[in-house]
Amino acid sequence: MSDKVAAVEGDTVSGLLAEIEDIGRDPQRGGYSRPVHSSAEHELREWFIAHAEKRGLEVEVDRNGAIWAWHAPDGSHDDAIVTGSHLDSVPGGGAFDGPLGVASALVAFDVLRRRGALGRRPLAIVVFPEEEGSRFGVACLGSRLMTGAIDPDRARALTDADGNTFAEIVARGGLDPAHLGPDPEALARMAVFVELHVEQGRGLIDLDRPVAVASSILGHGRWRVTIAGEGNHAGTTLMCDRRDPMVAAGRLVSRIRDLARGHSAARATVGRLVPTPGGTNVIASRVDLWVDVRHPDDTVTTVLVEQVRQAAILLAAEEGCDAVLVEESFSPTVDFDAGLRDVLVATLSDAPVLGTGAGHDAGVLKDSVPTAMLFVRNPSGVSHSPSEHVEVDDAEAGAVALADALSACGRPGRGC
Amino acid sequence: MSDKVAAVEGDTVSGLLAEIEDIGRDPQRGGYSRPVHSSAEHELREWFIAHAEKRGLEVEVDRNGAIWAWHAPDGSHDDAIVTGSHLDSVPGGGAFDGPLGVASALVAFDVLRRRGALGRRPLAIVVFPEEEGSRFGVACLGSRLMTGAIDPDRARALTDADGNTFAEIVARGGLDPAHLGPDPEALARMAVFVELHVEQGRGLIDLDRPVAVASSILGHGRWRVTIAGEGNHAGTTLMCDRRDPMVAAGRLVSRIRDLARGHSAARATVGRLVPTPGGTNVIASRVDLWVDVRHPDDTVTTVLVEQVRQAAILLAAEEGCDAVLVEESFSPTVDFDAGLRDVLVATLSDAPVLGTGAGHDAGVLKDSVPTAMLFVRNPSGVSHSPSEHVEVDDAEAGAVALADALSACGRPGRGC
Repeated sequence: MSDKVAAVEGDTVSGLLAEIEDIGRDPQRGGYSRPVHSSAEHELREWFIAHAEKRGLEVEVDRNGAIWAWHAPDGSHDDAIVTGSHLDSVPGGGAFDGPLGVASALVAFDVLRRRGALGRRPLAIVVFPEEEGSRFGVACLGSRLMTGAIDPDRARALTDADGNTFAEIVARGGLDPAHLGPDPEALARMAVFVELHVEQGRGLIDLDRPVAVASSILGHGRWRVTIAGEGNHAGTTLMCDRRDPMVAAGRLVSRIRDLARGHSAARATVGRLVPTPGGTNVIASRVDLWVDVRHPDDTVTTVLVEQVRQAAILLAAEEGCDAVLVEESFSPTVDFDAGLRDVLVATLSDAPVLGTGAGHDAGVLKDSVPTAMLFVRNPSGVSHSPSEHVEVDDAEAGAVALADALSACGRPGRGC
Repeated sequence: MSDKVAAVEGDTVSGLLAEIEDIGRDPQRGGYSRPVHSSAEHELREWFIAHAEKRGLEVEVDRNGAIWAWHAPDGSHDDAIVTGSHLDSVPGGGAFDGPLGVASALVAFDVLRRRGALGRRPLAIVVFPEEEGSRFGVACLGSRLMTGAIDPDRARALTDADGNTFAEIVARGGLDPAHLGPDPEALARMAVFVELHVEQGRGLIDLDRPVAVASSILGHGRWRVTIAGEGNHAGTTLMCDRRDPMVAAGRLVSRIRDLARGHSAARATVGRLVPTPGGTNVIASRVDLWVDVRHPDDTVTTVLVEQVRQAAILLAAEEGCDAVLVEESFSPTVDFDAGLRDVLVATLSDAPVLGTGAGHDAGVLKDSVPTAMLFVRNPSGVSHSPSEHVEVDDAEAGAVALADALSACGRPGRGC
């Protein structure tokens, strides 16, 4: 990778992202598919490590597969200022969701060094694995393991679409799956975690500003609905003899949308649906579909998910099928650390404060560490799509804002 | 493979199928997934060739990848009696759909030889590729190429789920894709084609008989509906800002069922549906779904498909999406050759005559060659599923019936 790593002095966020613009492209979906522990994600991890080492940072991979790049001039990792994001993507995602935060962290480090503002306090850049949950179904899996928000036995048993377990895949990546799990030492050394991320909505477009400070993350979760019917031949089975789970699933997708519309500010989405066996001339024997539900009030989320469960059972029964709904993950609504947010708002004087509907590692870490987020304007307003975008000037403004934020966090008496 | 090929003299249909019972098992779907030109299907082709060679049959692979095993004592292939079926399967299919016809053909050959009934007239067993259309979307692709029912340029450009073209895949399998296409010489040497197949419905269960003669194949086809909306983030996009093609697709699946119920004897199925990009936390940008439609009256099929097209456009528009419907294949209703059918009915005196809703290579060949089919009882009544089954006694009765049928076809004055 070293030939791709440009001179440190002149690195820009856009320049760094240009180095990885060919990695993990998805010709079928468009954009990028960079699932955790795929060859593309491994290549991105090597790219990050090469950049960290060029900067003289000390690189370590923790028990859960997060990469840490340390500026620790006195050898201590305690009371560290930490920034970073992730490198994995959703299938067919954009170039910025994750990598923008990692590239901005590298450039922010460069800015602080040029300013002579690094000081003696340890600073780390961290890259979390499986933030999107695209491969194993649980978003922010790395930070959930670190904080103990997911049981390591459950994480080890998670499977990808090919039936590989998370334990098998991390072992292939060189980690010992037996060591997955809570990492209180890693958490204890973090004084603060600030994550920069491309905005996933239109807030900064409407306000005509490049960078915002985050207020909160909408509570969100994923539930899997499995509808079981009877597989059979599409040509020889009369319509009246069928127990077709696809019909029930189709009606459920539409019903879920209607149910979500019944709760102000709720979002419910079915973006993934898998009929089994999935042949054109075969009535499916089973359909699995995943429901993503989000609402600022977690009790509303609970009510909405229960409505989805009842609808699934009812619609399945009408087709002679059975339905079960299982929670795969749930993250309550997160209000970021108020003191830290106030420091950032005071430092970045023209940055508005915005909430987000998207989950992040900073949200999962929030109960263990004071966390904050910065958002950078996305002129398309579109996310989890190849259309996601960040202008060059906004990307550089984001990195400078991140440097300012980290600097403010490091100042005595600023609450970090 | 030769160690798996048991002594020729004692081969039974069940014994032959037991030799391949571990090839292409699908642990996720259950049953077997043996797509054309997969390693599993190649292993099955080698197994067949080994059995043909053990019997002293002369093996050739034609320009479209069909395997022919010839008993041609005088060196001529003209005026041949031909039987056979296919070895590829639907995803998660049963053990009998295809392989039963191939194994029965080998045993029928053994029966004729033991009877001293082979004679001088050429007899061939043929294995057609991609009968199910599970990999490249067009059923009976081998026989369609042979007869010219599909343009070879279109066939070469067909893609599988991984984006491989049919041309690339047949080249990897050792065929020259430039040679794909009509094969009038192969057709001209066939005097008759008799295909034995597991029954895909309940006709023989209800009649309590082991073997039937086919009357007709229901007209059938496949249409692909593509609904395009706007991909976006499942958390940050308000319900009112969405153009979600999954909602339109879900409503369409249910509507298609209702439309099919409006035409007596019609069947319409959506067994395959693919959201793009297919992430849990992503509103799909596009959904592709495939509609399998069948009806004895081809004009009703045309009307029903047009209703599906109109429904797709309307439901998509209601979600701010666009829909297009494209025909991928269509086979009109086939009445098998009446003279040949009468010969078989006279020969197999206790065999009822049954229609079928399933497509077969014998249906595609029907306009070029007199064709007939035999069906063997399936006690589950279920097809394209691991539940498909044939009892040992019925399988052997089927092979003997096939031998009798081939023998009758070879007799002068019997219309073959």
